[in-house]
Amino acid sequence: MFWTFVDASQISDGTIRIEGKQGHHLARVLRVRPGERGVAICGGREIELEVAEVQGERVLGRVLGERLARGEATTAVTLLQAVLPNPDFDAVIEGGTAVGIRTFIAVQAARSIGHPPAGRQARWQAIAQSAAEQSHRGEIPEVTGPMGLSSAVDRAAGTRLLALEPAASTPLLHALDGSPAYTIAVGPEGGWTEDELATLRARGAVTVNLGPRILRARLAPVVAAAILVQQR
Amino acid sequence: MFWTFVDASQISDGTIRIEGKQGHHLARVLRVRPGERGVAICGGREIELEVAEVQGERVLGRVLGERLARGEATTAVTLLQAVLPNPDFDAVIEGGTAVGIRTFIAVQAARSIGHPPAGRQARWQAIAQSAAEQSHRGEIPEVTGPMGLSSAVDRAAGTRLLALEPAASTPLLHALDGSPAYTIAVGPEGGWTEDELATLRARGAVTVNLGPRILRARLAPVVAAAILVQQR
Repeated sequence: MFWTFVDASQISDGTIRIEGKQGHHLARVLRVRPGERGVAICGGREIELEVAEVQGERVLGRVLGERLARGEATTAVTLLQAVLPNPDFDAVIEGGTAVGIRTFIAVQAARSIGHPPAGRQARWQAIAQSAAEQSHRGEIPEVTGPMGLSSAVDRAAGTRLLALEPAASTPLLHALDGSPAYTIAVGPEGGWTEDELATLRARGAVTVNLGPRILRARLAPVVAAAILVQQR
Repeated sequence: MFWTFVDASQISDGTIRIEGKQGHHLARVLRVRPGERGVAICGGREIELEVAEVQGERVLGRVLGERLARGEATTAVTLLQAVLPNPDFDAVIEGGTAVGIRTFIAVQAARSIGHPPAGRQARWQAIAQSAAEQSHRGEIPEVTGPMGLSSAVDRAAGTRLLALEPAASTPLLHALDGSPAYTIAVGPEGGWTEDELATLRARGAVTVNLGPRILRARLAPVVAAAILVQQR
């Protein structure tokens, strides 16, 4: 069963038209054939469809039914993530999308190794889309940045802000308070600097740990997000 | 700061002698030098030491102090994991060790792709050791198998047995009951077969899900274990 995301403009008279990159993916990579079933997500709804026709890289599907999308977590989790060297950042977006992160904000931190070139954001967004299809999400997470820490925190306004810091005395689980939206700020391999932690704390962040074990930079944000998402 | 595991026989008169593969790793890979500090884990204790001398691939350290190891989770988690194609199984051992899994039991499942060759268990054990050092564990997880499902379940006797099954109606969090020891059985990419699920249920397993999102086979066990470990 395939899973894809469409616009309302692609649907008319009980037929869904899938072209462009997604048509290519379905027709050439997944090689869908008439009769095959899948799901097209549109505006928070899961539309069940059956492939009627494959014309080159255009796939036409017949709508069988629809229902509210079920792949979104009740808790909205934003990951404010320091830039990591590749392939770690890509792995964080892939795994983080699968566990349910809604928004990724890339931050150029003091200890970040490397500066992502122009165009990297588009690549990250494409990884998020592909992971959202694979994990059967109800929406594609948004990926923004990289930007400075202060701008990133501005974007997290209105959410409960947590900062992962191995030396913190509060376990992540103890910082949960039933908030509907969390932002978790995760530093690079060497962690946030004291200045960055001061900036985060000044903006209301609670510093939290994930226990006494040291998690690699590409694993920590995925585990933290999975725990936040499962809590409600 | 380096982290290594030693036997009591390597310690005498306030000096720790590290040779063999670990000596090679410290002297040649990490290139430790006299004066550098690290931790040697021995029998559940963290021994703080300072490198006194490096002779070829032998490292001599001076004991500075010791305390109970803090890197072990209160909840003992065993992962009964279906064989996955490489590099996925390796990634599960690496990530699972970092989040705190105590025991890995590899199972040759009906839908497992590939049969690990003889000697693979030794490779898995080496990955667990390396990940235990990197994540500052208090002991090295044991990796056994691959074996049949029934023998694997025998080894999990005395723990609360959970089986990950995306179609299950019980979320993992709801199946936690304060048990001190859990075994979580995770299938291959295509999941457990009905026969395998029947075997697991006959042995008392509760089937649980990780939410409506589909996690890749290499990520699901790590996330499940992280949630189990954090619960107490």
